[in-house]
Amino acid sequence: MRTQVGIIGAGPAGLMLSHLLHLQGIDSIILEKRSREEIEGTIRAGLLEQGTVDLMKKTGVGERLMREGHFHEGIELRFNGQSHRVNLHDLTGGKKVTVYAQHEVIKDLVAARLNVGGKIIFNAQEVSLHGIETTEPKIQFHYDKDSELQEISCDYIAGCDGFHGPSRPSIPNSVRKEYQKIYPFGWLGILTEAPPSAPELIYANHERGFTLLSTRSPEVQRLYLQVNPNDDITNWPDDRIWKELHARLEINGEWKLTEGPIIQKNIVPMRSFVCDPMQYGRLFLAGDAAHIVPPTGAKGLNLAIADVQVLARALDTYYATGNEELLKRYSTICLRRVWKAERFSWSMTAMLHRHPDHTPFEQQIQLAELDYVTSSRAAATTLAENYVGLPIEWQAGEKEETIAGFLYNE
Amino acid sequence: MRTQVGIIGAGPAGLMLSHLLHLQGIDSIILEKRSREEIEGTIRAGLLEQGTVDLMKKTGVGERLMREGHFHEGIELRFNGQSHRVNLHDLTGGKKVTVYAQHEVIKDLVAARLNVGGKIIFNAQEVSLHGIETTEPKIQFHYDKDSELQEISCDYIAGCDGFHGPSRPSIPNSVRKEYQKIYPFGWLGILTEAPPSAPELIYANHERGFTLLSTRSPEVQRLYLQVNPNDDITNWPDDRIWKELHARLEINGEWKLTEGPIIQKNIVPMRSFVCDPMQYGRLFLAGDAAHIVPPTGAKGLNLAIADVQVLARALDTYYATGNEELLKRYSTICLRRVWKAERFSWSMTAMLHRHPDHTPFEQQIQLAELDYVTSSRAAATTLAENYVGLPIEWQAGEKEETIAGFLYNE
Repeated sequence: MRTQVGIIGAGPAGLMLSHLLHLQGIDSIILEKRSREEIEGTIRAGLLEQGTVDLMKKTGVGERLMREGHFHEGIELRFNGQSHRVNLHDLTGGKKVTVYAQHEVIKDLVAARLNVGGKIIFNAQEVSLHGIETTEPKIQFHYDKDSELQEISCDYIAGCDGFHGPSRPSIPNSVRKEYQKIYPFGWLGILTEAPPSAPELIYANHERGFTLLSTRSPEVQRLYLQVNPNDDITNWPDDRIWKELHARLEINGEWKLTEGPIIQKNIVPMRSFVCDPMQYGRLFLAGDAAHIVPPTGAKGLNLAIADVQVLARALDTYYATGNEELLKRYSTICLRRVWKAERFSWSMTAMLHRHPDHTPFEQQIQLAELDYVTSSRAAATTLAENYVGLPIEWQAGEKEETIAGFLYNE
Repeated sequence: MRTQVGIIGAGPAGLMLSHLLHLQGIDSIILEKRSREEIEGTIRAGLLEQGTVDLMKKTGVGERLMREGHFHEGIELRFNGQSHRVNLHDLTGGKKVTVYAQHEVIKDLVAARLNVGGKIIFNAQEVSLHGIETTEPKIQFHYDKDSELQEISCDYIAGCDGFHGPSRPSIPNSVRKEYQKIYPFGWLGILTEAPPSAPELIYANHERGFTLLSTRSPEVQRLYLQVNPNDDITNWPDDRIWKELHARLEINGEWKLTEGPIIQKNIVPMRSFVCDPMQYGRLFLAGDAAHIVPPTGAKGLNLAIADVQVLARALDTYYATGNEELLKRYSTICLRRVWKAERFSWSMTAMLHRHPDHTPFEQQIQLAELDYVTSSRAAATTLAENYVGLPIEWQAGEKEETIAGFLYNE
């Protein structure tokens, strides 16, 4: 087989890249190790930045999102027994965030690709990368365990295969620098069949630990509790979870959390990770393959979409003009925004969680930070502009909105 | 002896408090353990917030300041081989900072007090506080070692006697909570007889460590180097200091540091400290007696001046109306602003210094922070509004400018 861009991974990064390339007349094949049912059925949270929503709308995959998504113009911060609203909309000149689950984004993108004959090979086994330093890199795989070896020749490979995929390790250790932070806490997440308890997300810093009240739909809510990352979910019967959620969220007498049956629960650790560079030879990493953020700032999916916007534009420029300059700057452009998102995710995490190793001085500094963010318009704006998504900076000093006008800006 | 307010310490806090009380018709006596020559001759840096300058002008002690002070509308941040100006003036709606040394402030305030017959007892020995839980607290002292014990009876005592003075320890341990952070670096500071190398202050984050280029006058410059706090100044001959300053500050070929004879050099450790509460019985702490900040944000002197503004207003309200409400809220009002200044000083220190214990991830986060602060208007505004001075918040939610209009706002 041959294609222009071989894409490993049918997550948001790989699917959106394939979709954008198609709109630019560039051929691609996606290899995905799981089945379509599995990627469409794995329930994942989703909070889309304004730029992500704009891109989906402008590229024709935003119809269901606009119908079923929930648009939030603010978030609530709770600490010290008080509640403060951060008005994202006012602070960012009209931007907002959209609650729309990641697997719904995946469904929309898979449907869009398949509707126009896009090629997605599901259940691809033992995927491996070859010749990424040459001008004709190859991806090898098997349709199933017993079938013969397949090979795709391509001009470029996009590694959109997540943190554990084979792409990143294909970059030699000698050129690859990895940065990592493991946090001393995890998130116990639940899905509950209950109506929303509040119209917007609530981030609570409580002496018992951080809590996030989020929503998936009018029928299903998503809530998280800060716990020890080594804790076992069997230590958390449903009534203990509810008791803890009530204690941490109900800071004054007026508001009450609505309970419902818990239909899913698990504990996940929290990590920050960045791989530098994000490109090597003809291989380009995008999304979780290159960087991980703790979920506090809701940046993971959005970073993946921003990466492939840069990559799609760079590939389009190359195929249209032969100019490789943007391709060469892919890693630099992405990493600048990635590190700002890493900074924001780290700082939101630091500001909202209780740290087992904090001194009394550091605890007070955390409260002063929360007080400052909720009492200074400039400080609230820094939170808001990061939360709705920073622009992609194509040149040092030059800024463009995430949508960047490169596709439909006549 | 008897007075309404007994003030311990003739630093900026004690002198300004006595000055403000005098303007309000309230009698005070200042006790200072050092001589007038000593307090006026101890060379200390000084960077005055807009509110401090406004207060000095409006209370008649700003004439020399306006003539000899240097007004700065911006600062420069250097990192990653580049220089970025933070336009304080534009970002704060016209505010600026003023370079005017602390001992000059002291000279002006001593002169103002003595000119109108204000009582300052210099060389007061063995000062001690008594009966602060009663309505008639007393301060005891000796004029000199061999003379007999003196006593001042007063309504209130203001402890403006710095970090090592007797006031803070007079608050029982059982009610006093102290917060502290010791930093893993110190500042090697020099005074040099040279013309200014740059029109504004330069804060440089360099791989060799933080450096600050500051100024005292057209003839004398003040520079600082981040060093190990346990280092000995004898390890730093002048040529080593200059070599290090050149290496850390000259990040591109265009600009050169001007050398001159070094007339003073020393190494100081860096500490954050807060005492809560700042009041107990009839004793009120102000300035360094209650809180210490690392010098990075230039907040120490300005915090002291803000404290005594609150105290002077509270005492004025009490003597004019008998209402003690503001006096009772003194600690709450001050500590809210103190903790914000502690947060800012800590974050400026964290952002600009090289931390011996930082992981590679944390080093990158620091650079991302600097990149964000110099590329986002909102983030630059947070730096600027803290640097020129946050308002005093008299009520939760209510803000007034530092000058607060309480003295001359007819």
